[in-house]
Amino acid sequence: MLVGTVIGRVWATRKEETLRGLRFLLVRPWRSDEADSAETIVAADPIGADIGEKVLIVFGRAARHAIGRGHDVGFQTAVVGVVDGLDVPLQGRANKDEE
Amino acid sequence: MLVGTVIGRVWATRKEETLRGLRFLLVRPWRSDEADSAETIVAADPIGADIGEKVLIVFGRAARHAIGRGHDVGFQTAVVGVVDGLDVPLQGRANKDEE
Amino acid sequence: MLVGTVIGRVWATRKEETLRGLRFLLVRPWRSDEADSAETIVAADPIGADIGEKVLIVFGRAARHAIGRGHDVGFQTAVVGVVDGLDVPLQGRANKDEE
Amino acid sequence: MLVGTVIGRVWATRKEETLRGLRFLLVRPWRSDEADSAETIVAADPIGADIGEKVLIVFGRAARHAIGRGHDVGFQTAVVGVVDGLDVPLQGRANKDEE
Amino acid sequence: MLVGTVIGRVWATRKEETLRGLRFLLVRPWRSDEADSAETIVAADPIGADIGEKVLIVFGRAARHAIGRGHDVGFQTAVVGVVDGLDVPLQGRANKDEE
Repeated sequence: MLVGTVIGRVWATRKEETLRGLRFLLVRPWRSDEADSAETIVAADPIGADIGEKVLIVFGRAARHAIGRGHDVGFQTAVVGVVDGLDVPLQGRANKDEE
Repeated sequence: MLVGTVIGRVWATRKEETLRGLRFLLVRPWRSDEADSAETIVAADPIGADIGEKVLIVFGRAARHAIGRGHDVGFQTAVVGVVDGLDVPLQGRANKDEE
Repeated sequence: MLVGTVIGRVWATRKEETLRGLRFLLVRPWRSDEADSAETIVAADPIGADIGEKVLIVFGRAARHAIGRGHDVGFQTAVVGVVDGLDVPLQGRANKDEE
Repeated sequence: MLVGTVIGRVWATRKEETLRGLRFLLVRPWRSDEADSAETIVAADPIGADIGEKVLIVFGRAARHAIGRGHDVGFQTAVVGVVDGLDVPLQGRANKDEE
Repeated sequence: MLVGTVIGRVWATRKEETLRGLRFLLVRPWRSDEADSAETIVAADPIGADIGEKVLIVFGRAARHAIGRGHDVGFQTAVVGVVDGLDVPLQGRANKDEE
């Protein structure tokens, strides 16, 4: 379960049947040093998150539950929340060695 | 669930029975900084993606669903879509620290 | 299954129904060289860990068990313990090449 | 699902009962830039791959299927194919930034 | 499924009920270049491995099987073997580019 930032969208015409009608977002995992990760996750979004918003992402069974099309489906990642805020008191310690 | 680029194919003669007749692609995960990842995923492809095309990749139960040979199979990754386009408004921010 | 340090909290108003009432922590995986990882995991916390405490984190079925809302839920990571102590006799060898 | 090179073997006398009689290989994931990854996966091998051969590796349910000892077992990774060849037309683009 | 070295132990008093009485080890994944990874995995150990020993680690269903407390448990990683020896004929090629 991750927090990530919505950086874009994916379109696919040729796709597995159970993906039809879903909105697929490109999500960049959030790092505590605020550096942008180049790694990118694709997630089905049933909530309607906007570009730039931070979202909660889940995988596997939790994602299938969130989309609500049963378990015989061809996707495995979903948005389950739009983040209002992160409170990170220990963020400042990120990437400092052995204090 | 990832977007990746099809960079090649894999052939295996000695293999688990349930892999017979499937087409296996080498897929390179897409990164938002457009740098090529050297990490490589193997995915069964029921759609017929071409070399150089971007595809949607899933793992586990979703992959078994996409291939449609039941759940007693020896593969775990599959192509579920061929990407028409990526719209990445926030791509430019990739790999820039703490703006 | 990981040990990580609680570095903050996440708030989300718009979220999947089964996430309501849960406390979500931002957790930074512990490394044996004590360097802070920037990678961040989100975990539901049924125990009440404080900022700065080290916790045990699990994923998937174990996380659903720990939260106790059944398996039809939209989360997949949970805190299952608050660490009293780490005893790491071989810690000093971290990041030394080929002694 | 990965392609990797068999770099060695593992022996264990004290082990979980369901691991008895299985051959465990050390496998190094293949990267498209041909650099050797130091990351190493352990996989049960029901096929009989040789040192230096490239193999297809799967995890979880697919691995349990491939070994054929049911699902109440203490291993989770298996060899499901010995690779005859990789055809990688886009390999040359590996690790080049933003062409 | 990984080989790793036992580098220490974890203690937790406040923990999920099904973790009681289990021994939790800190395990560092083995790399073929023998460099110490700083990444650390926590695994329940039913075998009794010592500090410094190399062990086989599994995740998910295989780990629940190895511990033998059923599938409604709050852990997901376990030791399934103590390694007697690694035979790695191709180890010397680790981390050399494109020979």
